[in-house]
Amino acid sequence: MADFAEPLARLITEFKRLPGIGQKSAQRLAFHVLRASREDAEHLAQALLDVKDRLGLCRICYNITESELCLFCRDLNRDPKLICVVEEPHNIAGIETTRQYNGLYHVLHGSLSPLRGVSPEQLKIKGLVERIGAGAIEEVIVATNPTVEGEATAVYLSKLLKPLGVKVSRIAMGIPVGSDLEFADEVTIWKALEGRREM
Amino acid sequence: MADFAEPLARLITEFKRLPGIGQKSAQRLAFHVLRASREDAEHLAQALLDVKDRLGLCRICYNITESELCLFCRDLNRDPKLICVVEEPHNIAGIETTRQYNGLYHVLHGSLSPLRGVSPEQLKIKGLVERIGAGAIEEVIVATNPTVEGEATAVYLSKLLKPLGVKVSRIAMGIPVGSDLEFADEVTIWKALEGRREM
Repeated sequence: MADFAEPLARLITEFKRLPGIGQKSAQRLAFHVLRASREDAEHLAQALLDVKDRLGLCRICYNITESELCLFCRDLNRDPKLICVVEEPHNIAGIETTRQYNGLYHVLHGSLSPLRGVSPEQLKIKGLVERIGAGAIEEVIVATNPTVEGEATAVYLSKLLKPLGVKVSRIAMGIPVGSDLEFADEVTIWKALEGRREM
Repeated sequence: MADFAEPLARLITEFKRLPGIGQKSAQRLAFHVLRASREDAEHLAQALLDVKDRLGLCRICYNITESELCLFCRDLNRDPKLICVVEEPHNIAGIETTRQYNGLYHVLHGSLSPLRGVSPEQLKIKGLVERIGAGAIEEVIVATNPTVEGEATAVYLSKLLKPLGVKVSRIAMGIPVGSDLEFADEVTIWKALEGRREM
């Protein structure tokens, strides 16, 4: 790193600490900042600090929010009878891109994993049970990831929530739209067969 | 962007303004910052501002520097008889990665382009002529890019500098090491044939 002036080398190092940014990308980003206006650099710097200073978790669903309730929990147009459970806050954005879901969310902040020592107490499950206990919820869609941990979490939630008199469903697994059977693994094809629907 | 709390949405927007960062990468980076410590965010924010506030151009070679002279111009172990001319400051890092070059540099900050209206006066060519006029330089290696503009700049520099009694050379063009003739375009193959060396 002795090839760059110290502030430039330091910015490259800082960029490299971000996920998916290697040495070459970090250099390109740093030189971009060098060419950009000071105002642009200030905006990015301020945005970084604001994210750390102004955000917290929603009191109801544990999504990221800058006020007590998140965008979805305070939106009166959303269906309050439906909760979609996701592992991480960023999963919500993926579901919202469909523009088809109009219910509420619940963020677990992780998934069950005995291997990594993650037990139910470490996830935001207690709050979910309380929401269902309050009575207005009709269906819980479990949208945890289709991984071993995500599946284990889904099964755990199903057993926990069904006795509370709520419908618990799991998102479908199958061949991704636009893909080809040729590229799908055997478990995915099996899930696609198992989840087949009459036409 | 209504899917995210305002500070998070703004950080995503700021990240997207960086080169090579799309919506998904920007989201991943923003959520990473959200999970990181405030200290980490501060370090990146400060590094961004320092790059704008503490850097200027080297008085001799126009490389990026935080003092009057850049790392290379003030390094007494570098060969002062040799100058490598590059288009942009970041090109120096590419040449330094070889660890084979031990001369000095000169940064043009662009390349000649009648189409984009870039004339010799807009490049740092005057300073280069002055350096050669001072007498200590024996060879100028022109390492501008192998593009139309880079080639035009190389030809221009060659005609300008040779009468000053200095050797002017051009970096070799040919098949990239580790590549395959199959993937090389015709101009590159022609350059490789033309630039062949006796074994």
